[in-house]
Amino acid sequence: MSTVRPPIKLGLFLYRSGHHIAAWLDPRSNINATSNFAHYAQLTQLAERACFDLVFFADSLAVRFGADADADSRIATRSTLLEPLSVLPALAAITSHIGLVATATTTYNHPFHLARRLATIDHISQGRVGWNLVTSNNEAEAANFGLKDHPRHAERYARAGEFVEVLKGLWDSWDDDAVLRNRDTGIYFDPQKVHPLHHDGEHFQVRGPLNVERSPQGYPVLVQAGASDDGRHLAARHSEVVFTAHSTLANAQAFYADLKNRAAALGRDPHSLIIMPGLSFTVAPSRAQAEDKAAALNAHLSPEVGLSLLSAMAGGVDLHSYPIDGPLPELPLTNAGQGRQHLVIDMARREGLSIRQLYERIAAGRGHASVVGTPAEVADHIEEWHQSQAADGFNILPPALPGDFADFVELVIPELRRRGLFRSAYEANTLRGHLGLSRPAPGQHHRHATAAGHAAP
Amino acid sequence: MSTVRPPIKLGLFLYRSGHHIAAWLDPRSNINATSNFAHYAQLTQLAERACFDLVFFADSLAVRFGADADADSRIATRSTLLEPLSVLPALAAITSHIGLVATATTTYNHPFHLARRLATIDHISQGRVGWNLVTSNNEAEAANFGLKDHPRHAERYARAGEFVEVLKGLWDSWDDDAVLRNRDTGIYFDPQKVHPLHHDGEHFQVRGPLNVERSPQGYPVLVQAGASDDGRHLAARHSEVVFTAHSTLANAQAFYADLKNRAAALGRDPHSLIIMPGLSFTVAPSRAQAEDKAAALNAHLSPEVGLSLLSAMAGGVDLHSYPIDGPLPELPLTNAGQGRQHLVIDMARREGLSIRQLYERIAAGRGHASVVGTPAEVADHIEEWHQSQAADGFNILPPALPGDFADFVELVIPELRRRGLFRSAYEANTLRGHLGLSRPAPGQHHRHATAAGHAAP
Repeated sequence: MSTVRPPIKLGLFLYRSGHHIAAWLDPRSNINATSNFAHYAQLTQLAERACFDLVFFADSLAVRFGADADADSRIATRSTLLEPLSVLPALAAITSHIGLVATATTTYNHPFHLARRLATIDHISQGRVGWNLVTSNNEAEAANFGLKDHPRHAERYARAGEFVEVLKGLWDSWDDDAVLRNRDTGIYFDPQKVHPLHHDGEHFQVRGPLNVERSPQGYPVLVQAGASDDGRHLAARHSEVVFTAHSTLANAQAFYADLKNRAAALGRDPHSLIIMPGLSFTVAPSRAQAEDKAAALNAHLSPEVGLSLLSAMAGGVDLHSYPIDGPLPELPLTNAGQGRQHLVIDMARREGLSIRQLYERIAAGRGHASVVGTPAEVADHIEEWHQSQAADGFNILPPALPGDFADFVELVIPELRRRGLFRSAYEANTLRGHLGLSRPAPGQHHRHATAAGHAAP
Repeated sequence: MSTVRPPIKLGLFLYRSGHHIAAWLDPRSNINATSNFAHYAQLTQLAERACFDLVFFADSLAVRFGADADADSRIATRSTLLEPLSVLPALAAITSHIGLVATATTTYNHPFHLARRLATIDHISQGRVGWNLVTSNNEAEAANFGLKDHPRHAERYARAGEFVEVLKGLWDSWDDDAVLRNRDTGIYFDPQKVHPLHHDGEHFQVRGPLNVERSPQGYPVLVQAGASDDGRHLAARHSEVVFTAHSTLANAQAFYADLKNRAAALGRDPHSLIIMPGLSFTVAPSRAQAEDKAAALNAHLSPEVGLSLLSAMAGGVDLHSYPIDGPLPELPLTNAGQGRQHLVIDMARREGLSIRQLYERIAAGRGHASVVGTPAEVADHIEEWHQSQAADGFNILPPALPGDFADFVELVIPELRRRGLFRSAYEANTLRGHLGLSRPAPGQHHRHATAAGHAAP
């Protein structure tokens, strides 16, 4: 690949009061970010003024209570959340350019519902929606949907693969020119250009057609974040944006090369797969000021909350019985998200961190790369990873919201622009346009499926 | 009941280009109302300027193709639709007072998803959402959700009854004061005020709690439209607004008395159940002008489209083999919506209508009461039904949108205000406030269920 790189892509990961687990306690955060639409509206409008490519929402279909109710009661992110796909249309109505990406699980949704909702939001936003495809890693979700046991990792990914095939088929079920609206002939639509799917698979039977016409982007931008082998396999086949967590440049480069190679092996243009690692940061005019700001957030962090965070990220194990200033014990792999579990364990081993040092290390960035410093130092990190084939862009994780995001816009964005790394005005009106992704040809999936004689290309 | 009546409630039923089946062909309609959010935005803002209580969206989880593809191709409402619950948040972001009501089926949704979405939209709109509970009457939906057969009428209502119990339990799972956000104590929420549901019923097992905190209205306003005995039974127990279709005052009065009596028999205040029949209208300064406007819409109606409409409303039977100017033949009851089928058949018998006369009669109002006349005549109908215990308000069905709704706002609203029948300014900020409905007490459902020892009161 060439070393002349296209400008970087930037996403803002909107995570309640901020990515630091104690953010809600800090005056630089909004104390109510769990039921307060205005919080997300103001941040998204600020991101649009800064010409960000997108804002992004995570999701969960259950509260994330841990084993310790007292620790839970101190953690805002263990409480509630506005349903992200219901927030996107409201954001679409008050913005005009920025991309809007939300997470929705394939494990506990039905494809017809999700195909409809995403196509509708793409219409409402005039081509700005993206979908972060996940398989649920919160085992508590099973009990909200009548299942005794949460499906296993491999089973979840098999369902996810079929799920996305069904969605593409539904999104292609109305040709772009199927709706004529011709008052002279009296013909509203051409039934010959409407294609029922007749999908009959292992997990789903869906006749179709969708009852939403083909949307401005054809398909919403397909986003994914799974780092396991199953996750990478699915990403290489279907994803257009991959969010990922790496704490070192070398790991990020290895992941980047692996994903691009997997996509190329499947016949895809590697540029059609945009890799955006997360970036945690604290920025201030001087490094000392930045370090003070980061320390102020960590000062809100009690051992109780820190242990509970670490337990959740390391696979649900209870770490209370281990010395807090001793090393992380050997931990078994669990049925929850495997990628993050590896990352946390590797970080402790590599840096020789005690349990306490580890939870302080992940309280804001949860395993993502982290920079505390001046605008130039944050921009250096971005430029280095971008130039070193580790990232096409970054999903930024402000520790406190709105405070740290406002600082990023004020301090880092101008520095990136001075270096020619980031846009000063939108060149396009759709999320695909911002990201340089082509619009899927109408009926592509449908025709491919017919030619190959089965539903999956 | 007293004859001094509270002011009338008004809803605007937003139905693509209008309620006349040929509306999209008329220059007074918006030719694209199937994928055009701006259409709904402008109409909702106009309704808010006129102080309407609410706007309302129907829904379907499948295209409504009939047996005749050529007829389908001429009918906009057989094509596509923006998913209504995704439209509501966008409307919430650009309005401040008007209620926002959307339909979602209990037959092919899961309660946890719908509880979340409705609570979220209630937060985004700051207390303005309503949910029109339906059981699916479109048999084509089954094939989009992997079912061989559409569930029978009684089975659908049994599921619906359990569904709404689960939703109430989930909406009560966070007490109003469960989220403390106290920076001094470091406590974000009180786990003692969070109540898992542990629902274990015939159709659903849902542990809870919901992961959205209790919303401004407690519960969204519960709306329903079923006219069958099963539908009335469910409405009397749970509904706060009932939309209904009657072509005669006597039928509307009988329905009104029946519903209010059923609610009273269950211990409810009859004023907590608001009955809003549909009203089709064409209004102009003179009756001759109104008749011309109505005739102009009917001029777009071909026999092919008229027969297809009638067939769909009369239960799916093919009427092509019967003389178009002869009487409606005997028709079997079907598994689709029974209320509307009865209404259409009764109308033909009562008025001695031919097949052609019947489809012309229902092309705009589809069995709802219809007035073509001056502003005073439309207001007379509204006042008479309101004073005669036939209606607490009306869900109005403009034949062409936006044209006929703009006429209603310009001509009828001032006449209603002159008569003291309708507000000139909002007295409240929530949909419950507009409708005079109380906010459900926190935990009411939960406590009741515990006291009674079972989930259903």
